[in-house]
Amino acid sequence: MTSGRTFVPESVADPSVTSPKGFRAGAASAGVKEGTNRLDLALVVADRPCVAHAIFTRCRVVGATVLVSRERIRSGRAQGIVINSGNANACTGQDGLLAAESMASTAAEHMGIDPSLMLVASTGVIGVPFPIDRVVAGIPRIKPTADGGHDAARAIMTTDLVPKESARTVEIGGRRITVAGMAKGSGMIHPDMATLISVITTDARLEPGMARLALKRAADASFNQVSVDRDTSPDDTLALLANGAAGGDPIQSGTVEARIFQGALDAVCIELARMIARDGEGATRLIQVDVEGATTLRAGRRVAREVIASNLVKTAIYGRDPNWGRILSAVGNAGVPIDPDRVDIFIGEQQVAAKGAFHPFDARVVSEAMGADEVRIRVNLNQGRASGCAWGCDLTEGYVKINAEYTT
Amino acid sequence: MTSGRTFVPESVADPSVTSPKGFRAGAASAGVKEGTNRLDLALVVADRPCVAHAIFTRCRVVGATVLVSRERIRSGRAQGIVINSGNANACTGQDGLLAAESMASTAAEHMGIDPSLMLVASTGVIGVPFPIDRVVAGIPRIKPTADGGHDAARAIMTTDLVPKESARTVEIGGRRITVAGMAKGSGMIHPDMATLISVITTDARLEPGMARLALKRAADASFNQVSVDRDTSPDDTLALLANGAAGGDPIQSGTVEARIFQGALDAVCIELARMIARDGEGATRLIQVDVEGATTLRAGRRVAREVIASNLVKTAIYGRDPNWGRILSAVGNAGVPIDPDRVDIFIGEQQVAAKGAFHPFDARVVSEAMGADEVRIRVNLNQGRASGCAWGCDLTEGYVKINAEYTT
Repeated sequence: MTSGRTFVPESVADPSVTSPKGFRAGAASAGVKEGTNRLDLALVVADRPCVAHAIFTRCRVVGATVLVSRERIRSGRAQGIVINSGNANACTGQDGLLAAESMASTAAEHMGIDPSLMLVASTGVIGVPFPIDRVVAGIPRIKPTADGGHDAARAIMTTDLVPKESARTVEIGGRRITVAGMAKGSGMIHPDMATLISVITTDARLEPGMARLALKRAADASFNQVSVDRDTSPDDTLALLANGAAGGDPIQSGTVEARIFQGALDAVCIELARMIARDGEGATRLIQVDVEGATTLRAGRRVAREVIASNLVKTAIYGRDPNWGRILSAVGNAGVPIDPDRVDIFIGEQQVAAKGAFHPFDARVVSEAMGADEVRIRVNLNQGRASGCAWGCDLTEGYVKINAEYTT
Repeated sequence: MTSGRTFVPESVADPSVTSPKGFRAGAASAGVKEGTNRLDLALVVADRPCVAHAIFTRCRVVGATVLVSRERIRSGRAQGIVINSGNANACTGQDGLLAAESMASTAAEHMGIDPSLMLVASTGVIGVPFPIDRVVAGIPRIKPTADGGHDAARAIMTTDLVPKESARTVEIGGRRITVAGMAKGSGMIHPDMATLISVITTDARLEPGMARLALKRAADASFNQVSVDRDTSPDDTLALLANGAAGGDPIQSGTVEARIFQGALDAVCIELARMIARDGEGATRLIQVDVEGATTLRAGRRVAREVIASNLVKTAIYGRDPNWGRILSAVGNAGVPIDPDRVDIFIGEQQVAAKGAFHPFDARVVSEAMGADEVRIRVNLNQGRASGCAWGCDLTEGYVKINAEYTT
């Protein structure tokens, strides 16, 4: 960390949701993930009621914990969130709803906070009765601490291979503030089970309207560019808790301070989103699609998402096959008015299509770029000045295996 | 075939596009599929100018042959179609457009018909320069005959494992009329290369407006329920040629005769659509999704398509995993207002979910139903009286292999 005023968000060593001041977290193994003693219960709490906001799945089939948290977050305040993995508590009827309420109130009581300030989330298999007894018995065993963030990040994993944590720090109005987050998600295009759960903590003091807007903007630039809207799962939850422990006046929308904060929040969310894409089920590589020359940000993002969502692009990258026709075809399917005869396509540094047609390239070099741990596809629509970015991963036999065998 | 008046379309033995009176077809090997002597050029011609209509891809990136055929079909008339496989002639610029024109005019000259009446289609890899010299040299070697339909159906195959042909016959106004079709397509959710090409022939005499409407209706009930709109390829083409050889008055829209004809046309298109789904790349089983209790036909079809398009449903079926939560989740993602608490789900004959929640079932029986050559999923939204049907296949390691290795 450098000294003095820094507007560019800086990385934080050993990042976790407990990196910002005044947050504690912890985890326990409650046996929700049956037959294992893996961590499956996580709790994140702030030292005081926070300005809070949350964004949920757009799927019409909604998990019980989403129903409960959606109701509670209306107040714009929260102080903690309890999360389990191993069972999504979705498609579980009235029993599931009662279980979600009970899970939240047990956690609130354990922490000695107002029950209405405890959010709740679940992730795992859908449609299996929720083991509320085990969860209620497990919650009191969680002992949240100021360095318990890593345990919490592990406890929310399902098919994730690695925990996902990120933090950034910036100076705002002479005060050092930290934004941190954890996430779980397999990042595939048709997520199944509460694919995305992410908790963002910050010690910044935020004006409530500004918190809502900032979270929406960050989500649009990050998580929504990994998991296409129509493919959200019944439990997707992204929650922000801002405890204000850094002090100062509340940051207002439209100010320089808000822009600096947004930069840090975006950076955390984008890093988590990229980790989700990289850890996609069966993935061997991260793919980043940059679309330039779009008429609007919305159009650029939509085209980028369409390319990243194409099974044929994903398999071509897996096979290191410079099949740019599949990329152009996906561009044409985005539902955005484009002129194919203007489109340039690059894989890595190499241009492979110019004005919508073949451009001579060195197949060996392109194939090498497609074998990199991070594959970059750049599409220039040559229509305007807006751009959009999306992340995903290749589609492999591993994905098929994981998802053909998940519950059995 | 029974004698007397029959309104129910009957199957035709040994079906092909030359089953209706007055059609000839043939094929040749022109070397477009490099390094093989497989058939790759097909020609279908009628004995006279036909009432014709065609439906094309909605992708904004459009193959050269689509541009040419789209222009020609505006007249509502055509007499033949020439098709090649092995190269989609898409993303090939001005050269590709000239090649498509040249391919069509060569075929018209060879057959001695008006050049404006020859349609043209291409299927295969995208973005590779089109070998027009080989195609122009190959066309005169095609000798269309009244029993050449099977050769034509073979010549349009790309990754298809089997040729796809269907025919039905019905009596209309005391005359026996036949509707037949051939199709090629790998039937996956993100088709790449001119995934669908289908030619429908009939000796019925159709009024032009009626032909347009009937083809649109048949496509919506069949091909559009295999390949989701946004995933059409740059070359998708469905063409109908009606030569009127059966005689009688032209069939008008809104009449009993039109309904009978529609029944035969729908049956042919649905049989071809099911064949495409069954022959999906890497597929081991055909999946049929029946959605009932929808408020509108459109909603029912949309929900059915969303379920069939879900990678997670496809992999679950491949793994014979009765993971109905994935089905309900897909239902919720269709963008159709549904009430999850009303939804019933059946796999085969077994109910697996009732009112959006778990319904006890015999896992062995369900797993067996999921292993059948044809897997039936039935979803009752319990909202209205409309229904929709869609077809697809499971997603397997084989799909990944085929598409990771296609052009290399």
